[in-house]
Amino acid sequence: MTRLSLIALIGFAVSACAQAEKPTNIIMVVGDGMGPAYTTAYRYFADDKSSDKIEQTVFDRHLVGMASTYPARVSGYITDSAASATALSTGHKSYNGAIGLDTNKDPQQTVLEWAKSRGMKTGVAVTSQINHATPASYAAHNENRRNYNAIADSYFDDKVQGKFALDVMLGGGWRYFIREDRNLVEEFKRAGYQYVDDMAQLSAIEPQQPLLGLFGDTGMPWALDTPKQTRLPALVEAAIKQLTNDKGYFLLVEGSQIDWAGHTNDVASAMAETHDLAMTLEWLESYVKANPDTLVVVTADHSTGGFTIAANKDYRWDPEPLKNLKGSLEALAEKISHSDSPIETAESWLGFSLSKDEKSLLSALNIADQEAIYTQLKKLMDVRTNTGWTTSGHTGVDVQVFAMGKGAEQFKGHMDNTDIPKKLFQMMAKP
Amino acid sequence: MTRLSLIALIGFAVSACAQAEKPTNIIMVVGDGMGPAYTTAYRYFADDKSSDKIEQTVFDRHLVGMASTYPARVSGYITDSAASATALSTGHKSYNGAIGLDTNKDPQQTVLEWAKSRGMKTGVAVTSQINHATPASYAAHNENRRNYNAIADSYFDDKVQGKFALDVMLGGGWRYFIREDRNLVEEFKRAGYQYVDDMAQLSAIEPQQPLLGLFGDTGMPWALDTPKQTRLPALVEAAIKQLTNDKGYFLLVEGSQIDWAGHTNDVASAMAETHDLAMTLEWLESYVKANPDTLVVVTADHSTGGFTIAANKDYRWDPEPLKNLKGSLEALAEKISHSDSPIETAESWLGFSLSKDEKSLLSALNIADQEAIYTQLKKLMDVRTNTGWTTSGHTGVDVQVFAMGKGAEQFKGHMDNTDIPKKLFQMMAKP
Repeated sequence: MTRLSLIALIGFAVSACAQAEKPTNIIMVVGDGMGPAYTTAYRYFADDKSSDKIEQTVFDRHLVGMASTYPARVSGYITDSAASATALSTGHKSYNGAIGLDTNKDPQQTVLEWAKSRGMKTGVAVTSQINHATPASYAAHNENRRNYNAIADSYFDDKVQGKFALDVMLGGGWRYFIREDRNLVEEFKRAGYQYVDDMAQLSAIEPQQPLLGLFGDTGMPWALDTPKQTRLPALVEAAIKQLTNDKGYFLLVEGSQIDWAGHTNDVASAMAETHDLAMTLEWLESYVKANPDTLVVVTADHSTGGFTIAANKDYRWDPEPLKNLKGSLEALAEKISHSDSPIETAESWLGFSLSKDEKSLLSALNIADQEAIYTQLKKLMDVRTNTGWTTSGHTGVDVQVFAMGKGAEQFKGHMDNTDIPKKLFQMMAKP
Repeated sequence: MTRLSLIALIGFAVSACAQAEKPTNIIMVVGDGMGPAYTTAYRYFADDKSSDKIEQTVFDRHLVGMASTYPARVSGYITDSAASATALSTGHKSYNGAIGLDTNKDPQQTVLEWAKSRGMKTGVAVTSQINHATPASYAAHNENRRNYNAIADSYFDDKVQGKFALDVMLGGGWRYFIREDRNLVEEFKRAGYQYVDDMAQLSAIEPQQPLLGLFGDTGMPWALDTPKQTRLPALVEAAIKQLTNDKGYFLLVEGSQIDWAGHTNDVASAMAETHDLAMTLEWLESYVKANPDTLVVVTADHSTGGFTIAANKDYRWDPEPLKNLKGSLEALAEKISHSDSPIETAESWLGFSLSKDEKSLLSALNIADQEAIYTQLKKLMDVRTNTGWTTSGHTGVDVQVFAMGKGAEQFKGHMDNTDIPKKLFQMMAKP
């Protein structure tokens, strides 16, 4: 071989490697409301205090960058989940409330629709109702996120090149998919979809057949109120089983209820929902090792609640009170309201004894007022853990970006949330 | 040339490039208290609303990773500035309050001392007093950060291999360096240091001679109360002029008062102090382009105040009220307390008209009580901007890492704060 052709060979090899890597499978994971405080707090929540070291979490292992989350100018600097999901799904900034539309209310193609048009299988696996803002922004187009019924209908009615947008749908939503005026579950079944409404049935599904799984009236129950306090890993494993095929798949995964915990300032559920997502990512870590032709990108749409790790001048954050809960604080409030011995019920559920003050504050409440009891339990947890909150809405802080697998190196440093789908579109482009 | 020797040549060249890059000059920049919410808010504060785009900031351009900030286990998960500065300067976690000592109270070598031992020049340029926790942790060793006088004394008394630890010291600290019991300014002058106590004198200093510059009793005045509302770029430019030499330099820079604004929940000064640091980084961007053998690493020691971008259920953050201030809110409180027409004074200083409610709330205060007036002005700003705060102390969220110049690529992804000096030690190791 001549010197020139050797140089040419090396040059060709180098440039071939440098070309943007195109994974066969793409999994987009959204931790709804999961700002940097949530993943940081999760590290301390997961910390085993008996050891000297504070272990890195799965989030730490795969952090690559951060993203700005601002919506279209008309909505200011603080996004809602619809505008941010639309930014993440289409690459277009839009107004708060918009589902897959731009500021002119024109529908924009989503990365999921693009995947389907390229012959890939597609799916959503979420803990909210499957027509909530985030999954809806990948699979539908509507000027208002609250048009839940119309969005649900569109999952059946609006085809992408003659095919259903979604081969797999896992999450909640009986209220929207089994209605008096229309039974979409029956329609999907007649169209050849398997239907399950209990997670135990997921182990018996036919692989690689279209699948609709609905496990709640709206969202699924809190992670804390679920057996083993986790359910998203099982949804993702089932979805991937259905979607795996030679042409690859695009899967949208959402830990939807981190945001719900943030909105209601419930630090116990905030950590449990984040844990559910962390377990999912650990499962995906192993999956990607075994299936290296897969890209997993993880981000948050925004942060929620103004959650701070420490508050009130006290240099302390104590996650211990969060570690032995029998269930969610909301479920505890319901149990207390029906209990003859509310304090004992509370102590048994929480896994610790209440102080004199804590008992007084609880006892002072109207025992039938579950909302008031839930509020008091959340405050109790805030004081014990020294957690701060500034809002029941969203905040504008930048969010983290994590990535693993083929093409992960393309998401480094600072980006805007719209940059994520732009890269995904390119990765799924015709060669 | 034979094929084998060509392959060998290419292989050698590739491996030479892949070896850890060793910059000649290292500039470590700390934004004290500058958690992710501060740099994100700064983007929106700096945003020109008349244009469609929201521009990237200097922070965005150089974001490379994030760092955990937790102190030694004995201090829990929430660090103070001493333990974090000790982690950043020595690579050892320590207890809150520790200056350059580990948990056994043994002194640990700092990257600045290591630089000096390698023949480099060294300096600090900060807006706090020069013996405040962060600079002290690079140049001194003391079991308690509050031993300000002893720390100041050690800057003169404790030599590194027979030389002064610091060739350049710029910041505040008359109270500690000019005392009845000891006049360190005179001692440094007798030892050959130039001394200035007015920033205007910085333009007339002898280059490359040791320099002590003290510009405040403790910290320097707020950025907002400084001509052109910025001073850190000038300090850094002056320091670099003194430090530049063939063997290179290590410079510690701190935007110290971002943290002070956070502690007192003053969003106006929080943005102004962050702006002062941003201007410094923009100057360093140009400097690094012209002097590519320089590494600049930027991080925060922790976040402060539980600052959130939006609060109170309102999806809004409005930085407009912060953009036309004549000075700090603290200075305004002082002016109001001596004014015959407090409301007019306030409106003129703030650059906007007060609402009826705002006027009432101010007028209801004891006009001589500056502290109460300052508190009310800060609350007014929080309401107008819709800013949230949860504490007058620190919080535990991870902080961002930014880097530019030679070796910047070594700081990617997630790291612990102790990893930063570990890399710097290696960069300054004997070849």
